[in-house]
Amino acid sequence: MTITVESLARASARDVRALIREGKWTAHTSGLALGHAQANMIILPQDWAYDFLLYAARNPKACPILDVTDVGSPEPKVIAPGADVRTDLPRYRIWRDGELMGEPADIISEWRDDLVAFMIGCSFSFESALIDAGAPVRHIEEGVNVPMYLTNVQCLPAGRFSGNMVMSMRPIPHGQVVTAVTCTARFPSVHGAPMHIGDPAEIGIRDINRPDFGDAVTINPGETPVFWACGVTPQAAVMQSRPPFAITHAPGHMFIADKRDSDYAVF
Amino acid sequence: MTITVESLARASARDVRALIREGKWTAHTSGLALGHAQANMIILPQDWAYDFLLYAARNPKACPILDVTDVGSPEPKVIAPGADVRTDLPRYRIWRDGELMGEPADIISEWRDDLVAFMIGCSFSFESALIDAGAPVRHIEEGVNVPMYLTNVQCLPAGRFSGNMVMSMRPIPHGQVVTAVTCTARFPSVHGAPMHIGDPAEIGIRDINRPDFGDAVTINPGETPVFWACGVTPQAAVMQSRPPFAITHAPGHMFIADKRDSDYAVF
Repeated sequence: MTITVESLARASARDVRALIREGKWTAHTSGLALGHAQANMIILPQDWAYDFLLYAARNPKACPILDVTDVGSPEPKVIAPGADVRTDLPRYRIWRDGELMGEPADIISEWRDDLVAFMIGCSFSFESALIDAGAPVRHIEEGVNVPMYLTNVQCLPAGRFSGNMVMSMRPIPHGQVVTAVTCTARFPSVHGAPMHIGDPAEIGIRDINRPDFGDAVTINPGETPVFWACGVTPQAAVMQSRPPFAITHAPGHMFIADKRDSDYAVF
Repeated sequence: MTITVESLARASARDVRALIREGKWTAHTSGLALGHAQANMIILPQDWAYDFLLYAARNPKACPILDVTDVGSPEPKVIAPGADVRTDLPRYRIWRDGELMGEPADIISEWRDDLVAFMIGCSFSFESALIDAGAPVRHIEEGVNVPMYLTNVQCLPAGRFSGNMVMSMRPIPHGQVVTAVTCTARFPSVHGAPMHIGDPAEIGIRDINRPDFGDAVTINPGETPVFWACGVTPQAAVMQSRPPFAITHAPGHMFIADKRDSDYAVF
């Protein structure tokens, strides 16, 4: 039987993680295990952990922390007890001195006793709310990864970390832009309300059809691009700050948590 | 001229901090510089900073981080550029090995180059919203410090830190309890929605008239005690976890930030 997004939309987080662990799902995770929160990830050596946690605390819109593993432990106990961040994401990125070295399907051979994994909120968590409110989520409609852009918005630096903010974009019909703001503002720990509405040039984006991460999507006449802070922001910080070693998820290839999207709604 | 809460209610945060720095205001800060956010504080040696920041990340209801100073710097640049955490709070607490050693009015002589100050959200920030919604704030009405209780609710441990949650209490008329929930939920980074509504025994409080910190307030017939997570929680962690050295604010004697309460509203 072919495994499709549709067949996994109603699956449990645990079942989807098991498929991913077995190598049976290697694509992006948008639309899988609907209702379960998904998480961005960055893994760093203990020596860099304080600087990153401070970077996250100073930039909570881009880097809302959902869970942090104990040093050397691959288990995200808060959001998915029993899971293993070394195997349960479909695609990883290995970074050395800020350079992308590879995109393996697991990181068993890269794991070390001094590593700490930071799990960061993902805007996929509010997409159900957008859909429920009647707003389109174009990348789901088109079956592609969400478009993400490296903007000119600078994050507050922290220790050795600095970098610009990455934002995801969804085209919203003019009449639904306010709804898109209010229904995502309810979820502050998964990026919350948008960072920017309208002209991409205002945040340093030259060509909206050429995202820096993910896939381009159609913007129809009468639609406004709306930008939300994105958990790929730590990868921009890795590129700029060049820690000797880091592992992240591959953009769009998220960790699927047991926690539900609704756990992160303030209302 | 006598300085009163009333005379400082409409003062700027900067002006109130200046009075405090000059030793002209040494009491608790409830009701001062209305509209400005107030902050709890804990200062720790760099060696303990990661464990505490992780404790805060794992317990965001009790320890929402508003600002963290750079190592050795007393300036909270995010919430009050130019301020000095060594002089700008009316009363401090000095802790050694988890024991309270004194309550000085400044900490100039205690400052060290390895110290980090964590500024933590305070429920005073949503009290204007309660008042605007027509709900009483009894400790303001009675001119005393808010009552705070050490509960039996355990925080998630992090590194060497563990402890139970401290909660503040406000008596709310039965008909306004729902309003008290919704209007404080808008402020997730200053403790947000209540942790508990009703029977104090349920969270381990034996005598509601004997708070562990602050002052008792009148609970009228027809009112329900409503409990919010409190930024004195780090002091309970200090008592249990016994770091060699720590400085905190004295309960109720807060840092008054330039940031406004409204900066922390998600709507």
